[in-house]
Amino acid sequence: MSVAVLSFDFRRLTFDMKLLTYQNTSNEQKIGILQNDTIIDIEKLGFKSNETFAASMLDLIDAGTDEVKRIQSALAHANENTIAAVSVPMSEVTLLAPIPRPRKNIIGIGLNYTEHVAESARTLDTSKELPQKPVIFSKPPTTVTANNTEILHNRNLTEQLDWEVELAVVIGKKGKYVKKEDALDYVFGYTIINDISARDCRRAGQWIVSKGQDTFAPMGPVLVTKDEIADPHNLNLSLKLNGVEKQNSNTKFMLFNINDLIEDLSTVFTLEPGDIIATGTPAGVGAGRNPQEWMWDGDVVEATVQGIGTLTNTVKEIKF
Amino acid sequence: MSVAVLSFDFRRLTFDMKLLTYQNTSNEQKIGILQNDTIIDIEKLGFKSNETFAASMLDLIDAGTDEVKRIQSALAHANENTIAAVSVPMSEVTLLAPIPRPRKNIIGIGLNYTEHVAESARTLDTSKELPQKPVIFSKPPTTVTANNTEILHNRNLTEQLDWEVELAVVIGKKGKYVKKEDALDYVFGYTIINDISARDCRRAGQWIVSKGQDTFAPMGPVLVTKDEIADPHNLNLSLKLNGVEKQNSNTKFMLFNINDLIEDLSTVFTLEPGDIIATGTPAGVGAGRNPQEWMWDGDVVEATVQGIGTLTNTVKEIKF
Repeated sequence: MSVAVLSFDFRRLTFDMKLLTYQNTSNEQKIGILQNDTIIDIEKLGFKSNETFAASMLDLIDAGTDEVKRIQSALAHANENTIAAVSVPMSEVTLLAPIPRPRKNIIGIGLNYTEHVAESARTLDTSKELPQKPVIFSKPPTTVTANNTEILHNRNLTEQLDWEVELAVVIGKKGKYVKKEDALDYVFGYTIINDISARDCRRAGQWIVSKGQDTFAPMGPVLVTKDEIADPHNLNLSLKLNGVEKQNSNTKFMLFNINDLIEDLSTVFTLEPGDIIATGTPAGVGAGRNPQEWMWDGDVVEATVQGIGTLTNTVKEIKF
Repeated sequence: MSVAVLSFDFRRLTFDMKLLTYQNTSNEQKIGILQNDTIIDIEKLGFKSNETFAASMLDLIDAGTDEVKRIQSALAHANENTIAAVSVPMSEVTLLAPIPRPRKNIIGIGLNYTEHVAESARTLDTSKELPQKPVIFSKPPTTVTANNTEILHNRNLTEQLDWEVELAVVIGKKGKYVKKEDALDYVFGYTIINDISARDCRRAGQWIVSKGQDTFAPMGPVLVTKDEIADPHNLNLSLKLNGVEKQNSNTKFMLFNINDLIEDLSTVFTLEPGDIIATGTPAGVGAGRNPQEWMWDGDVVEATVQGIGTLTNTVKEIKF
């Protein structure tokens, strides 16, 4: 038994449940827990604890909050040596989006912050009236890309590539006709989505081409389980382009909060584990600025949500 | 050896590749080939032929046209006794949608027949100008329902429940930047979708609530492989409501034909095996009639596409 174990420090055993999906050096897709600059391999933690844990983020979401608690318990009972044995340095892996391949299109919410409704009405084709019901669109699974990857810019399609930092809600259990007051029971956790939008790609007003192009949903860097977020309606969110702040607001300014959204959405669609709701962006998008600003090859965009982290991506123009 | 085998009739061995997904009496989900009133169980056909065939429609689509040819070959080499041994009467199974659970939202095309553009402009909020590019929206996987099931009508959401018969194209292989002239190489087959639309559910012009409610994509009854359809651009399509014809046109009148759509869509999204494109509806929808007509509890709607079949559903009002 090593000295390390004898000098066992309980303070080190408080783990944030910042979950991530990554590819290891053997090209296996794994899930882990971010702890400073290392990742705790959830599968290996299971082996050490004589437990079998979910092998993918969607499996973990399907398994639900009980499984998260079992993982937390295994962590709490692991000693330093065990933690070290099941950890891998961030530098040795490739980070993927927390849910690399959603099972359906991401549910997007438009015009969900007052100032963004105003800036959109000034510069785009939307109404200046506040929406009476959530405005819903979708982004296909092929839009998803990870932290530190490229947003692909097809200039044959758009010369108006824009940013939108958003809190994304990950659904944890199946629900239809969910009541507002029960809505957060249906949440598994939270992540960040940068809802990339090509403003000149709307067709008959539909937004899916504008928002649905490959790589237009950077997601991550991590998925935070809901118990880690004291109040999802009081999170700062901000965005920088090439180091200059463009958006800065707080989720308390949502027109329809998460409870409202889940109640409304679940009257329309059956919500399912692994569904992702991108809850809308605050003011400060490129389309709303005077003069308007767009993203171009080499631009670096950083989307930050308090309690989750920062999602960084670089724009890459596609050469034909 | 039985007399049946001695009186072997080769004419019986010409099988249309009308594929379907069904649930057998053991509640297993299976795929089969429709042959009159019986279904040839593809898995059992494989056992008899010492082959392993795909177990689900998505697996079969992933396996591709070569697998379809192997199934056809197994059928051609099977005798009557074998066919009888691997067949199950339609009456003993529950038919499911050909693809009961797509891997992403169905890609819908709006305003893709001239007369429908005109009727929509008269009665809805769309332009009377013909679209310059395909108008794209989406329907979540939770919209899919089978032949002979109920379309659920939530009167808290809509009093304008409408029909739309459409040819649906099922993509067979991954493609980005597909050229028009190569587009049909990317098709696996065809089915019918009734693109149910709640005309009063658009929000800031977005159609996903209108078209995305649970059960709003009846699909089937079968999926026909592309080799069975001589020309997908010359198929009659029609729809009856309670036995009265409401729509009657031909796919040759599409504004953007299948080649155009695949070329355009693949510049936006990476197309993937199992993707479904609902190619738009001709004139004759309820919203376009004078006076307008809507569907109500108990109404029976039959959507027919030449070479595929008839998809029949009944409207059921949800009682709260």
